[in-house]
Formats: sequence, structure tokens, C-alpha cells
Amino acid sequence: MSTVSSLPANENTKNTKVALLQFKVTEDKPTNHKTAASFLEKAHEKGASLAVLPEIWNSPYATTAFEEYSEKLPEIGFQYGDNSLDDSPSAKLLFEAAMKHEMYIIGGSIPEQDADGNIFNTCLCISPSGKLIGKHRKVHLFDIDVKGGIRFMESDTLSPGNTLTAFSAGEGFGNIGVGICYDIRFPEYALLLNQKYKINLLIYPGAFNLTTGPAHWELLQRARAVDNQCFVLTASPARTEPPEVEGKYKHYTAWGHSTVISPWGEVVGTCGHEEDVVIVDLDMEAVSNMRQGIPTANQKRSDMYSLTDGTK
Amino acid sequence: MSTVSSLPANENTKNTKVALLQFKVTEDKPTNHKTAASFLEKAHEKGASLAVLPEIWNSPYATTAFEEYSEKLPEIGFQYGDNSLDDSPSAKLLFEAAMKHEMYIIGGSIPEQDADGNIFNTCLCISPSGKLIGKHRKVHLFDIDVKGGIRFMESDTLSPGNTLTAFSAGEGFGNIGVGICYDIRFPEYALLLNQKYKINLLIYPGAFNLTTGPAHWELLQRARAVDNQCFVLTASPARTEPPEVEGKYKHYTAWGHSTVISPWGEVVGTCGHEEDVVIVDLDMEAVSNMRQGIPTANQKRSDMYSLTDGTK
Repeated sequence: MSTVSSLPANENTKNTKVALLQFKVTEDKPTNHKTAASFLEKAHEKGASLAVLPEIWNSPYATTAFEEYSEKLPEIGFQYGDNSLDDSPSAKLLFEAAMKHEMYIIGGSIPEQDADGNIFNTCLCISPSGKLIGKHRKVHLFDIDVKGGIRFMESDTLSPGNTLTAFSAGEGFGNIGVGICYDIRFPEYALLLNQKYKINLLIYPGAFNLTTGPAHWELLQRARAVDNQCFVLTASPARTEPPEVEGKYKHYTAWGHSTVISPWGEVVGTCGHEEDVVIVDLDMEAVSNMRQGIPTANQKRSDMYSLTDGTK
Repeated sequence: MSTVSSLPANENTKNTKVALLQFKVTEDKPTNHKTAASFLEKAHEKGASLAVLPEIWNSPYATTAFEEYSEKLPEIGFQYGDNSLDDSPSAKLLFEAAMKHEMYIIGGSIPEQDADGNIFNTCLCISPSGKLIGKHRKVHLFDIDVKGGIRFMESDTLSPGNTLTAFSAGEGFGNIGVGICYDIRFPEYALLLNQKYKINLLIYPGAFNLTTGPAHWELLQRARAVDNQCFVLTASPARTEPPEVEGKYKHYTAWGHSTVISPWGEVVGTCGHEEDVVIVDLDMEAVSNMRQGIPTANQKRSDMYSLTDGTK
């Protein structure tokens, strides 16, 4: 799958080659920036017109670290210009890479601090011209306590987002929906995105772990793909384990296995838990073929169940 | 998994042993009755207190056959008595087996004809005392046309049902939800059942085929189990292929692979495509353990999305 193309991506491209960037995250922010920039360069070299970074790639994945590593982030519609984002180095890196490589960037996630001091787990979605076309704050916080497995409480320091995130990424990809990690466990979120926006790609930067990863990571991706008859893309940090990364914060061991699933539910690109770049040229006709062959979207029983925007 | 127990099931039992009955269906109704009765006997001998039959077990699975094999069926609340159901031999068999073997029977499905001549694909759910506690008419008709794969149009001769089907099956199993085959492709149906009734078991008699079976049968069961953190049970006809079963009606080749999935998404009992009885003693604590460890039901964002009973 690692074919190289000299065709540069641009805003109007029909190139549908995607790259999942699975790299190691450390406690040193400048090191993480250097790694991210180098992986984005690799994605460009391999001809990708859309790249996905992992969840929390500029910071350790630890509730006690999020504030320290957090940045102020721009709002949807923001257009990058000279000297923009000088106080948001992680965001700046993403915008500059999107423009330099003429790629859509689904920027994994980074801790965001708003004007009131609230911290969010936030994904920036940037167009090749340097415009912020999507901003997803993780909607379902990862609060779990599995006996004999993992305990993690994002809500100790994070606030949840409140928006369904979808945007158009040109005629090649069409509409894209975005969630972050634990959001994938909530079928309603993806179903409502697809019902409202007819999305062709669902993208979840995520960092499952050694308890839920082997049990549910691939299953949930395949489920969301077949439920919505669209591609599902995930990008995880590469796995790191102490003492390699021992430091100030409690260590979280990510599952890895960044993956692309087809609308038919097949794994069409994946990797192990080491650093890797997964490249897949998406066959977008697979979306329309599946929707024509098994037309579930037209067969929903809206007289029996109805999924709506909620009470607000 | 094929352990034998001498403990009979009864209405108040805590026995949670289930049996999936995968048998061959022919064009001869009396033969199908004989087979079903013999498989129900086997389920009893193995100590099951709940048995699931396949979708359309008394008739060929062919749209042109459904009317000929259809029966008038009783309504929910019906109590079997002497000489009941003399005009509904397939239903009669199920009621008598439930009482004789003191088992819950999820009666797969049989073609039902209502007073207006409409035909439905209907599952009768019967308690050990011979009461009809659930009646599910397939809600999503199986109309698909996969290029290079399968074409089938249930709506050529069937009408769809209009109800969510759930009932209590005593303190052992708790609440059970039922769908039929293609209903499993609609996550909203299962999510709404679970939201309203907190179900521990989701049961889908089903007959996938050689196109969608290998691709989606197990995936959809595991997806519905993890989405709703409950057991999922399916029962399919055993596979038959011409010339073995050549006859009057166009032949449908079932996938088989009747399966039990745990709330964690594991296959805890399954079989191949031949005739078989899958026996699993369900560990009901797996439901509460999963719901405590990963409490998604309490983490739904009802302020962002809302699933309701529909517009009626």
C-alpha cells in the first residue's frame, strides 16, 4: 500500500489517497513537534492529500498534563496568515504543514484551553489553503473503570465539547465527519452525523489501550463503517512503554493499530503498534456501491424511531 | 459447550442455559415440523431453559412461498389451552413444546397471514406456561441488490411490522429484545429497545446468505452486543444446497453460523453451516460488569442527540 505518487494534492483535487500517522508521543513538546512535522512530510512524499494525526500528539496522555500542554486554538473559519498562531505552536505547525504540502489535515487532538480556563480534547481540521474547516472537541469523555483492566477519568480535568463535527473536503472526499476516540462507542453520534450530512468518511483520532484495544478497537471501526456505509479512519499514537518514556506523568500505553475500514467493513489498511504511516488510496465508489446495494439509509423506519439533534 | 443438565427449566428458574437450533428447512411442512420438534427435544435434553429457532423454519425462504405456508397467529397475551391453534400447526407445535419442556421459546419466524390477507415474517415468543409474551413482525424488510452478489425483495410479498418487541423472561434472563435478520442492520432499533427496556439479551433469528454472511453476520452481532452491552443470540437455518433440496421454489442458501455473543463482544458459542445445537450457559453478570466498567448508557449526550419512538 506504500505507493509513492508525485501528484501534489490541492484544494480541488480528486486525489483520495489518505495517510494515517502513527508516531511516538513523548513528554517533550518540541520533540513531538519535530516528529509530527516529519510524519506529515512523509505523508506528502507518499502522495497523500489527507493526513490524520493521533489523539493527543503534543502532550502525554495524562489528565494531569493536559493543562500544562494546552494551547489557545482558533475558531472555525479562521484563515492562517503571516505570524498567525504564534502563541499556539502545535496549531501553527498543522496549518503550515497543510499549506506547504497542500493537504487536508485532520489534526489528531491537542489539549485546548478556552478563555475561561476550561480544557478540551480538540481536533483541528484544516484545508490545504490553511483554513480551519472543522474543530471537534471530544464529546464523550473517556471515564471508564474496568475491573482487572484500565481506569481512566478524563473528566477529572477535561470539559466535553457540544458539537457534531462535519465539513466538506472537496469533490474527491465529499463530506467528512469527525469524532475522537471514545466518541466511537456511541453509535448515535455517527448515525446523526450521517443522517444530517451524508458523510463519506468518518475519522476518529484515538488512543485505545491494552484492555479495550484488542477487544473493541477494530470491531467498533468496522461497526461504524457498516452502520453508516462509509470509510472509517483512525490514527493512534505508536505504543510506548516505560522505561523508554518514563517521566513526570503517569504513563498511558496506547494500542496503536491505526486503520482504514471500507464501507463494506473490510480492513483496507492497518499497521501494528510501532511507528508507521498507513497509506490507502480510497475507492470512493465503494460508498455509493454499498449504499445502492444495501440501501439502509432509505429503509430506516422513521415512523418507529427518530434520531434528532437533542433537546437544545 | 454441549454439557447436559438434568435440571428442568421453569417459569421462575435462574437457569440461563440457552440453545440455538440450527436445522435444515425443506419444502415439506410436516418434515419441518418433525425436525423442529426433534431439535426442541434436544435443547431440553441439554438442559436449556430458552431455545431459539431459525428465521422461516416451516417454509422455504422464498417470497413466492410465503403465502402458501402462512398461518393465522395469535396475539400477545394469548394463553394456550386444549385444542388451541388447530388451524396454526406451526404455532401449535411451538406452544406445546414450550409447555412440555418448560422452556422459553423464541420461535424463529414463520409466515403469518392477517385477516386482511397481508403476509408478515413473524416471530412468536412463548413462555414455559404457554403464554404468548412477544410477537415480532420483521420491521425492516430484506430488499437488497448487491452487484455480483445477491438480490432479494421481501417486499414483493411481505408487509412490515410496526412494533419494538421486548418482554421480561423472569429473573434469570431479565428483559429480552427481539428482531429478525435484516433488523440487525439498523442500530437505532436495538438502541431504542435498550434505552426503553434495558435488555440483557437481543435475539435475532436470521438467515444471512453467502454474500453478506461472511462479511457481516458476526460483525453485526458483535456490534449490537457492544453497542448495547448485552448478549446477542442468532439462529439460522442450516445450509442446504441444490440438488439436495431442489423443488418448486427458488432456493435460498443460508449462511448458518448460529452464534452467541457476550456483552464484551466475544463469540461465546457458535457452529458451522451444518445442523447443530449451540448450547451456552450465559454468565449474566457479564452484562452488569460491562455496564459498570464502561458506563456508556449513562454517558449518552441526550443534549446533542435524542432517539425517540418516532413520529407516531
